[in-house]
Amino acid sequence: MNENIIPHNFSVSSKMREKLRGHPGLVLWFTGLSGSGKSTIAHALDLALYKQNIHTYILDGDNIRSRLNSDLGFSEADRNENIRRIAEVAALFADAGFICITAFISPFRRGRERARHLLPEGRFIEIYVNCPLATAEARDPKGLYKKARRGEIHEFTGIDSPFEEPVNPEITIDSSKLSVDEAVKHILSCLKKGQYGLS
Amino acid sequence: MNENIIPHNFSVSSKMREKLRGHPGLVLWFTGLSGSGKSTIAHALDLALYKQNIHTYILDGDNIRSRLNSDLGFSEADRNENIRRIAEVAALFADAGFICITAFISPFRRGRERARHLLPEGRFIEIYVNCPLATAEARDPKGLYKKARRGEIHEFTGIDSPFEEPVNPEITIDSSKLSVDEAVKHILSCLKKGQYGLS
Repeated sequence: MNENIIPHNFSVSSKMREKLRGHPGLVLWFTGLSGSGKSTIAHALDLALYKQNIHTYILDGDNIRSRLNSDLGFSEADRNENIRRIAEVAALFADAGFICITAFISPFRRGRERARHLLPEGRFIEIYVNCPLATAEARDPKGLYKKARRGEIHEFTGIDSPFEEPVNPEITIDSSKLSVDEAVKHILSCLKKGQYGLS
Repeated sequence: MNENIIPHNFSVSSKMREKLRGHPGLVLWFTGLSGSGKSTIAHALDLALYKQNIHTYILDGDNIRSRLNSDLGFSEADRNENIRRIAEVAALFADAGFICITAFISPFRRGRERARHLLPEGRFIEIYVNCPLATAEARDPKGLYKKARRGEIHEFTGIDSPFEEPVNPEITIDSSKLSVDEAVKHILSCLKKGQYGLS
């Protein structure tokens, strides 16, 4: 760059990025107990949106815990930091004009509220996958509830650490009653009814 | 989710995401001294790619240091962690089928090599914005060199902390000779010549 050239403002704005993507950037934040079906429903929703040519990206344990957050353990401080970083990355994807889907237990209201406040009003959609503890524990897809009951893991949400239910989530799914397909259909219809810019 | 329903594999793959975006995911990793022009060229390139309907996103000090990495200072450990997280986030954007542009000094080879190895072969493009220290220091857009020379800031790259030049960068720009427009044109022509899937 020649010293005499004054740099212009070259920035591509969020609005311009959204125009290219064809829809606004959003965060769809799933929250719920381990075994509630969050991740399964989130991935099914991801696929359904993809088929509509909507630009999505999913953040879940698979691509976060072993990579960006591989330095974090499961202490309360580390779990908070885990959610803080996920919220920041999700906000970047939304700023890029993506529909970013996150699927983490995220048991604490404070962490979820902080995630919400990183986004402009109306761009954060909390999806509570509600499921009775007994049902989630009976499923126990990763055997974690058994371990927690035996005391082999500590501060496990629902057992010896609380799950703070969302106070006013945009969408609630009862995953003990709805099939995955029904859950996805319900979410899609809520997204269409809401003022989220999806048609 | 009904307990009797076995979850299917609903995953949207990187390949599928790239198909929707219309081009492969890449990381364009700018590296160079403070004042070398990295950020200005990176933003101009971002805009040029945007005009070609290419899905880009830029990570720079503005959206990273004050947000995701707001817990980090400027010690060597924190600077390494800063670059580690940026590399992980850039890899997520590339996995999402984006061309992710990063603009950070990133003075250490080890950090840049680690960033490279997070991506599949050929998806990480190191762009060295080469600029003599004297030129960068004369520009001193943020007054940081002056502060470093007065000893008010420490471990400043080029003054009392080394800049490890890239050994074999995919693209080199001499920003003391090229204008911003010329630099962007050169990068675009390298991207087209390279086997990066851009036409």
